[in-house]
Amino acid sequence: MAQSTLDQVIALAKRRGFVFQAGEIYGGSRSAWDYGPLGVELKENIKRQWWNTFVRGRDDMVGLDSSIILPKAVWEASGHVETFTDLSVESKLTHKRYRADHLWEAFEKKHGREPNSWDEVPDPETGQRGNWTEPRSFSGLMKTYAGVVDDESGLHFLRPETAQGIFVNFNNVLNVARRKPPFGIGQVGKAFRNEITPGNFIFRTREFEQMEIEYFTAPDDAQTWFERWVEDCWDWFTDLGLREENLRRFDVPAQERAHYSAGTIDFEYRFGFQGGEWGELMGVANRTDFDLSSHSKASGTELSYFDQATGERYTPYVIEPSFGLTRSMMAFLIDAFTEDEAPNAKGGVDVRTVLKLDARLAPVKVAVLPLSRNERLSPAARDLADALRKHWNVDFDDAQAIGRRYRRQDEIGTPFCVTVDFDTLDDQAVTIRGRDTMSQERVSLDQVEAYLAPKLIGA
Amino acid sequence: MAQSTLDQVIALAKRRGFVFQAGEIYGGSRSAWDYGPLGVELKENIKRQWWNTFVRGRDDMVGLDSSIILPKAVWEASGHVETFTDLSVESKLTHKRYRADHLWEAFEKKHGREPNSWDEVPDPETGQRGNWTEPRSFSGLMKTYAGVVDDESGLHFLRPETAQGIFVNFNNVLNVARRKPPFGIGQVGKAFRNEITPGNFIFRTREFEQMEIEYFTAPDDAQTWFERWVEDCWDWFTDLGLREENLRRFDVPAQERAHYSAGTIDFEYRFGFQGGEWGELMGVANRTDFDLSSHSKASGTELSYFDQATGERYTPYVIEPSFGLTRSMMAFLIDAFTEDEAPNAKGGVDVRTVLKLDARLAPVKVAVLPLSRNERLSPAARDLADALRKHWNVDFDDAQAIGRRYRRQDEIGTPFCVTVDFDTLDDQAVTIRGRDTMSQERVSLDQVEAYLAPKLIGA
Repeated sequence: MAQSTLDQVIALAKRRGFVFQAGEIYGGSRSAWDYGPLGVELKENIKRQWWNTFVRGRDDMVGLDSSIILPKAVWEASGHVETFTDLSVESKLTHKRYRADHLWEAFEKKHGREPNSWDEVPDPETGQRGNWTEPRSFSGLMKTYAGVVDDESGLHFLRPETAQGIFVNFNNVLNVARRKPPFGIGQVGKAFRNEITPGNFIFRTREFEQMEIEYFTAPDDAQTWFERWVEDCWDWFTDLGLREENLRRFDVPAQERAHYSAGTIDFEYRFGFQGGEWGELMGVANRTDFDLSSHSKASGTELSYFDQATGERYTPYVIEPSFGLTRSMMAFLIDAFTEDEAPNAKGGVDVRTVLKLDARLAPVKVAVLPLSRNERLSPAARDLADALRKHWNVDFDDAQAIGRRYRRQDEIGTPFCVTVDFDTLDDQAVTIRGRDTMSQERVSLDQVEAYLAPKLIGA
Repeated sequence: MAQSTLDQVIALAKRRGFVFQAGEIYGGSRSAWDYGPLGVELKENIKRQWWNTFVRGRDDMVGLDSSIILPKAVWEASGHVETFTDLSVESKLTHKRYRADHLWEAFEKKHGREPNSWDEVPDPETGQRGNWTEPRSFSGLMKTYAGVVDDESGLHFLRPETAQGIFVNFNNVLNVARRKPPFGIGQVGKAFRNEITPGNFIFRTREFEQMEIEYFTAPDDAQTWFERWVEDCWDWFTDLGLREENLRRFDVPAQERAHYSAGTIDFEYRFGFQGGEWGELMGVANRTDFDLSSHSKASGTELSYFDQATGERYTPYVIEPSFGLTRSMMAFLIDAFTEDEAPNAKGGVDVRTVLKLDARLAPVKVAVLPLSRNERLSPAARDLADALRKHWNVDFDDAQAIGRRYRRQDEIGTPFCVTVDFDTLDDQAVTIRGRDTMSQERVSLDQVEAYLAPKLIGA
């Protein structure tokens, strides 16, 4: 993926209202992004596909929605208060802060070796070497205070991952859900990390969204389920349209894994970033019994499972497929971005931009376009749009030339355009145009739903 | 609604895994609740109905998903930093804090008049009068810090309402969405308020979820749209099953309204709280041009609309229907809670508990029940469950007597139970039982989907 594609996708996402900068009219926040009318639909569609595949669609999974703010005790037990830290350095010249490991890795990538000291490491902005403060550790947790006074008693943290909300509810779910290992709990929701250097568009932000599964197994079965989840996650992305050549697995070596992990496979996507094309999209980790054991010890509540068949009690292992929702959205956008050729009004061809999104993900499923703004065409087209809106997200557009409107819909990935023309008034039929082939079919008005339904299954 | 119904609903919600206390194994947090396997599905279904009705289902609406953390400047402009405060008092005896207005109103309700002074106001816990500290003002905003140092430059607030994220994106949406007033922007998401006294189950929490619409109109049309939105919101609740006798409108008098409001109608639901049955479910407010004007002034970016037809530029008025999602969930649960009679195995009748939830809201749509755990029945039942799971959220249950399993599904509001029995192996048919009537029909296996589909439209 050339860097220019990434730039084109970001420009399109901003221009067409997939993504806006948060707090833009106040100079903007680097911490977060806002999702516009198309972005919210695309994001919602990704969530829904994920939930339908991994939670509703499986008998061994249930869902959960735990809170964002949780008391300090939870984050002490999980190890986050102590270990969820990064080293940062500050440029003495610009007074900007950077993550020490990011600068270190950038040097390694460029020179094929680690720097001997900070004296060798350049400032990304000025190029000046070695003008750094001492590396300083700081917490990635974002805090807030609940209650009337800002003291320790009210100290809460915004969750840096949805996972802990699942672990602390393990017994609750076991009691109500009539499930036994192997079974899992899925959750979609916001998480917050105090990143020093948010960047790369929606890739690294302080506020972001995750889709996480914690899958509980007998210790002996953990490795088998780990491998199955890696396959299931891979299939989910490719079934929804990510091309295999843009997706790869990275088997994280032991020294780079989190201390609790007995194995981690990251999925990397070819985002096309400057200075390193690939970026982490999701990870599958074997978290062993670390989490349930830690919370058992810290809370005094035993989080374990009694197997009636064997008469044994054990602490389940956890396989964790953890997806970045906003990163997934970015990957789907980049992978769908295509430029091809379309005939223009002058008998030649124009370059057209098409988002070849899977119909299940496309934010708008059908656009209804009266050939021109006309007192007879517009009401007929509006009636059709209203009827289709009962099933799908529908756009109605009667502004400018029809060719331009097609381009507009192609650019946001709308799978079907339905054109109401003057013949419609006589023959009660419309023209339906497919996004990818640009081929057109004449379909009777009363058959439009039946024509579209099988092509939009699950959409 | 008798208080005992509320207690029964809360007990059911906890027992069956609709709602868990957040951080329970660490003593619990009063700030928030977690939503279990059934709660997350019910909440999701409410959201989806709302989005389909008010956003996707209307040509004059688009969606947005703005960030939770926003810089201080936004909340200064909106007036929240200055005015989003409450007065609290502390009991000198128990050192617990209470909202001053809540204690004041409790006295008024009981005695039919305001207290003459704090000397008359009793401590809710001890009954002792007058032993209060001076009322003290504190902010309802919850803060956090983004960036490496905890100082003013990184001060952000967690949004206390989703609305401001919509106002600050007014121009962005206007530019991309090809809409003009009257049009609206809808958003669903978390919001945070530093309540002194969270309570009444999921009714008043520090972390909660809202579904908000900001509808922009020409100033002259605002009152008409205000009235239409009140009707549309009323219809949404009653169409999804809330009984009219449990829902009422409260026309908030001018002196009790927010300073920017030219009119507010609250919807109150008969939750059945102790010391006051009714509680606020949602509100529709005419916010005038207060928000867009304030943000225009503070940001220097003009948030207004140029009407090409009249050649005039104006600042739109805003009609705001603001729904509490978690409050809506609580109201739907209470309204659905029913006790009636069902035949038992001894030829008598038992009291049965049924959640008569609208099928579109029910967390589980279909339960598949093999008559007994059997090597021939169970696989047939699992195959059917897997097939139905492609369309709906399906439960499979083979534990205990069939009557008990029916009771279990009734209690969580499952509209249909499909029983696979020994005849099924011969006649390839199953028994489908309706939740409310308990009537049973024999349906051929290959007709089950076709039988259920029209009864589960939109579900």
